[in-house]
Amino acid sequence: MADNRRSQPHPRGRRPAGENTRAALLAAARVEFTERGFDGATVRAIAQRAGVDAAMVNHWFGGKDGLFVAALDIPVDPTEILSRILDGDPEQTAERILRTFLSVWDANGGGALAALVRSVASHEQAARMMREFLGRVIFGRIVTAVAPDQPKLRAALCGTQMVGLAMVRYVIRLEPLASADPHTVVAAIAPNLQRYLTGVL
Amino acid sequence: MADNRRSQPHPRGRRPAGENTRAALLAAARVEFTERGFDGATVRAIAQRAGVDAAMVNHWFGGKDGLFVAALDIPVDPTEILSRILDGDPEQTAERILRTFLSVWDANGGGALAALVRSVASHEQAARMMREFLGRVIFGRIVTAVAPDQPKLRAALCGTQMVGLAMVRYVIRLEPLASADPHTVVAAIAPNLQRYLTGVL
Repeated sequence: MADNRRSQPHPRGRRPAGENTRAALLAAARVEFTERGFDGATVRAIAQRAGVDAAMVNHWFGGKDGLFVAALDIPVDPTEILSRILDGDPEQTAERILRTFLSVWDANGGGALAALVRSVASHEQAARMMREFLGRVIFGRIVTAVAPDQPKLRAALCGTQMVGLAMVRYVIRLEPLASADPHTVVAAIAPNLQRYLTGVL
Repeated sequence: MADNRRSQPHPRGRRPAGENTRAALLAAARVEFTERGFDGATVRAIAQRAGVDAAMVNHWFGGKDGLFVAALDIPVDPTEILSRILDGDPEQTAERILRTFLSVWDANGGGALAALVRSVASHEQAARMMREFLGRVIFGRIVTAVAPDQPKLRAALCGTQMVGLAMVRYVIRLEPLASADPHTVVAAIAPNLQRYLTGVL
């Protein structure tokens, strides 16, 4: 579970109400995002389903994006990721995307990512959430910021490269990519990813 | 199950010996390829494990490649695929790879491929066989034929693009790539794949 908050261990059976609120929101979010997609699901409906005040979404997750990513079990903060990626020369966006993702993914040997990709491949619900995540939260916004045209096609093409890299490096573990240092991976892949972002299609 | 042979239905309980031989070889091949990898597994050892003559591998599968692919449940004939891809201008190899794979994958709406990718993502045995298939049978040979240098890295990079395309088009089904016509997909992706094959890395 992605948990951006630091929490103290608490005695068995005495969970603070906040933890219950957070868990209820996550469960409700998974249902709403799956049924309605990222755009269709509203913070109000999720909070209502969880039986808590809508303000709790901001309190616990910093907003809808944060709740979505927490529900997706991805151990990253999308706002921080986005600003790291969008800050700087648009022609080096691909390099920043790859450097950022590799640093997150490599952190635990790709274990969390491999688990995520596995669940995406085997569960329609996870596939749908990944579709939304790739399409809107990450690539939708990055691509909108830098693409000269065809933002949706460009976002999907970026998705092929990033999902494929995740599969080959962490799930299939094909050498030499599985153990290549991040610098080598970035140098090899960045020009391709950059073409999908800003090149002639 | 990949089955390149036409077979007549036969009465329950009266399966011809040939079908048993074929099934025994497939079962033995899965064990041997998984334990020893594509290079380590020998036709002799597979036949021995199956309790049949080694000549049966050629008879039923046309050789080790064919047996490997049949064991992998991919509905293609690798020899035919390879000749289709390697025949022609090396600078258009990527286009031929994409056209060939899309025609095979799209044939049944990507169902068989989605199932394959799912099993690769969830089973270490399938992941290992996919690793061997990508690394040696398909990209190893194609890349060896056209790459100016670093054939292993190039093969793995091609793997990221092709596996990612399979995931995004057939498993995650991210639009507009999920329903784009093959021509659009080839035009968008071929230059990237070609860079991995013959470009400057």
